[in-house]
Amino acid sequence: MSPAENVGSTVTDAVSRAYARIADVDRPEVWVELRPEAEVHAEAAEVERRLLDGADLPLAGLLFAAKGNLDIQGLVTTAACPAYGEVAQTDATAVARLRAAGAVCLGATNLDQFATGLVGTRSPYGAVRHAFRPEYISGGSSSGSAVAVALGLVDFALGTDTAGSGRVPAAFHGLVGIKPTRGLVSAAGVVPACRSLDCVTVLAADLDLAEKVAGMMAGFDERDPLSRVDPAGGGAPGAATSASAGGRGARIGIPRPGQLGELAPGWAEAFENVVARLRAGAAELVEVDIEPFLRTARTLYEGAFVAERYAAVGTFVDAHPDEVDPVVGAIVSGARDVPAHRLFSDLEALDVERVRSRQVFTTIDALLLPTTVEHPTLAEVAAEPIAVNSRLGRFTNFANLLDLAAIAVPGGMVGETHFGVQLVGPAFTDARLAGLARRIVGAGAGDQPSAPAAARLDEIVLAVAG
Amino acid sequence: MSPAENVGSTVTDAVSRAYARIADVDRPEVWVELRPEAEVHAEAAEVERRLLDGADLPLAGLLFAAKGNLDIQGLVTTAACPAYGEVAQTDATAVARLRAAGAVCLGATNLDQFATGLVGTRSPYGAVRHAFRPEYISGGSSSGSAVAVALGLVDFALGTDTAGSGRVPAAFHGLVGIKPTRGLVSAAGVVPACRSLDCVTVLAADLDLAEKVAGMMAGFDERDPLSRVDPAGGGAPGAATSASAGGRGARIGIPRPGQLGELAPGWAEAFENVVARLRAGAAELVEVDIEPFLRTARTLYEGAFVAERYAAVGTFVDAHPDEVDPVVGAIVSGARDVPAHRLFSDLEALDVERVRSRQVFTTIDALLLPTTVEHPTLAEVAAEPIAVNSRLGRFTNFANLLDLAAIAVPGGMVGETHFGVQLVGPAFTDARLAGLARRIVGAGAGDQPSAPAAARLDEIVLAVAG
Repeated sequence: MSPAENVGSTVTDAVSRAYARIADVDRPEVWVELRPEAEVHAEAAEVERRLLDGADLPLAGLLFAAKGNLDIQGLVTTAACPAYGEVAQTDATAVARLRAAGAVCLGATNLDQFATGLVGTRSPYGAVRHAFRPEYISGGSSSGSAVAVALGLVDFALGTDTAGSGRVPAAFHGLVGIKPTRGLVSAAGVVPACRSLDCVTVLAADLDLAEKVAGMMAGFDERDPLSRVDPAGGGAPGAATSASAGGRGARIGIPRPGQLGELAPGWAEAFENVVARLRAGAAELVEVDIEPFLRTARTLYEGAFVAERYAAVGTFVDAHPDEVDPVVGAIVSGARDVPAHRLFSDLEALDVERVRSRQVFTTIDALLLPTTVEHPTLAEVAAEPIAVNSRLGRFTNFANLLDLAAIAVPGGMVGETHFGVQLVGPAFTDARLAGLARRIVGAGAGDQPSAPAAARLDEIVLAVAG
Repeated sequence: MSPAENVGSTVTDAVSRAYARIADVDRPEVWVELRPEAEVHAEAAEVERRLLDGADLPLAGLLFAAKGNLDIQGLVTTAACPAYGEVAQTDATAVARLRAAGAVCLGATNLDQFATGLVGTRSPYGAVRHAFRPEYISGGSSSGSAVAVALGLVDFALGTDTAGSGRVPAAFHGLVGIKPTRGLVSAAGVVPACRSLDCVTVLAADLDLAEKVAGMMAGFDERDPLSRVDPAGGGAPGAATSASAGGRGARIGIPRPGQLGELAPGWAEAFENVVARLRAGAAELVEVDIEPFLRTARTLYEGAFVAERYAAVGTFVDAHPDEVDPVVGAIVSGARDVPAHRLFSDLEALDVERVRSRQVFTTIDALLLPTTVEHPTLAEVAAEPIAVNSRLGRFTNFANLLDLAAIAVPGGMVGETHFGVQLVGPAFTDARLAGLARRIVGAGAGDQPSAPAAARLDEIVLAVAG
């Protein structure tokens, strides 16, 4: 068999297998729009041709899905509100960079409407059920992306994370969720949730793959006014320093006793297990006062910042009360009359907390926290849609407000629930965080069955090289 | 005569001369509070003792005044509203650093109340008349500081500059006004106007002195959450690079024909004269599109940002309607109901303009502009208090919104009016701007009678060394 035939069968076979599996799992709520298989096959064939022409396509052979608030050329960008969307004339920059690197996009995944929620239930395309325990929530707002990866429908998926929307569903599924430093990955072509805070994120079963994908997306983009690069150079996800960044002597902060607050049964012990594993791995664990982070999450995220959601979609929501999710609509419309002076007061408080946060990070390389506090059922969320959602963000809400990078990784099973932890650090420490995270997942905490993507990439490279 | 006697007579004589001159000029509206002469004499004596003890006091022998919105220990910080103020328990950081360097503070100067205005007339302590033409305005809000320097009552004065409040009164008096990069000089101990934009500024007759003073104030201050240092190092006012920064080959941007808009009679020609002088001095003059700056000044400063003034003093203003200046009170109270979503929309527009502004500065080292557009009379301001004020900020409003540094210098006389120009550049180009400004004032545009401060400093150094 010639290399050409081999590559050809490899990439298009992957597409065929994916669509077969999508049909097999029968989870329609994962998708806002799944592209027609024939169209995706044609795109896969084009990737193969480019490979044979000698193009450097580091993501060739990988299939992905993008959250439905990212523009995918030719698809309607609904943000889970059918009446809102228009056909995207061009890809979001993040999507475009992945496609340019050879990855193939299968479609747009479901989400909490307008990326407003951490639960995955707030969508007219259906409440997204957990991949393995369908009476439980998927988490959100990047709900469909997490389930698509967890079910092995795609190799990785893009989400967004304003207050935890990429990390929380990753945690519920034992996935890696990279939330890069704000501005490191362009948000051009993303429907804003809180525009000044939104980050494009990666969800994948495998840390190496997630980091590679984040690295392909990172970099300055003149389409995004908030795009930025590390003033000190380096630090991007996927940068060469990552593998070595977690060298011995790393100092990892953990909360003082009692500061975690109430967690699901067994989760505090699971957190202690991760701490013990890191300590055994020769990291130095240092107790720090996490009150500046908790206070930021508590007082600011529920403050005037919600008006940024109104600035993004409020006019639409007010004009289409019957076409928006009732919980999301109430949140957005409720922000209409928040006064600007209160926002300025919040920003002043935030400046103070940011200084305190910086001080904490002068003593540690990263902060280790649970990603979230409990794994609720769909019924629990339906009973208390706002309260449960708030609880879920206790450890994620503050990251973008304080300009921090974060990476969520699996932290082991507690009974049938996936327990997740995250490493959090200052802006532009993305590579360092990934290096430290490798100590956790490298030590056996990974609980996904396999890493098919990595294997398939090797196959492609062999086929082309051979 | 021994060195001790010589120093002693030099510093205390300066204080005596200053108080005599203050009495002589009879401009009570310059001051919110002038310290008792005896108290200042005691402080001068203390400076002399420290000098004789061998202390390094680079500003010894210099007298200054601080705008009445800066804390001066023991004085009431009124911000020109008697009912608002409390006795300051400690100096503002900027004031403290100057005193630590040997400068002596004579008192608090008058200002547009709450630093809200560019005119100098909005104060219960009296409308501040121009130093040399009392039917004209001093400019503001750092009105008393400008007049105190122009009349030679002090060697330099501190102002604040949110939208031009340091530069506009400097321009009307032929003074140098340094508006450092935001955060380079601590704003701790300053009554906020727009907290996120406020800068402490220096007004002086002499560029070298102004730069020296700014350099003494600059530097990180943990009391100010917005304090910052140049991530690339250097760049502070007074940094060693300043004198050489304006080397041949400098590229200076000027507006395209017609972009200056309406100016007072003769001012366009005066601007051309400065341009011609720079061109003769071998700088390369480059026409650039200044519309991003003008648009920012126009649409944003009069937008939702005014709510930041409400966040600072709105509760007080609402509770004390009879104790605030009517124009200032109307501006502040009028911002109470500005919605936060409009502020977020303004911030989004600002992010776009900031990118455009950065692009302009990739092609030039600095932008040359008139500092303001006309020199109104007190009667003209009384007739149209808001409209005249708005016009005066056309070329200054945008600097802090776009995170730019600026320095205002004299640009020659037009009849009896002082015409001023400013050089504007990206954050942390303060030293470069001062170097370029030296080309303007060094070429004869300076129109102050003398630089007594520099002479007095030499005297002191000689006395101590001798």
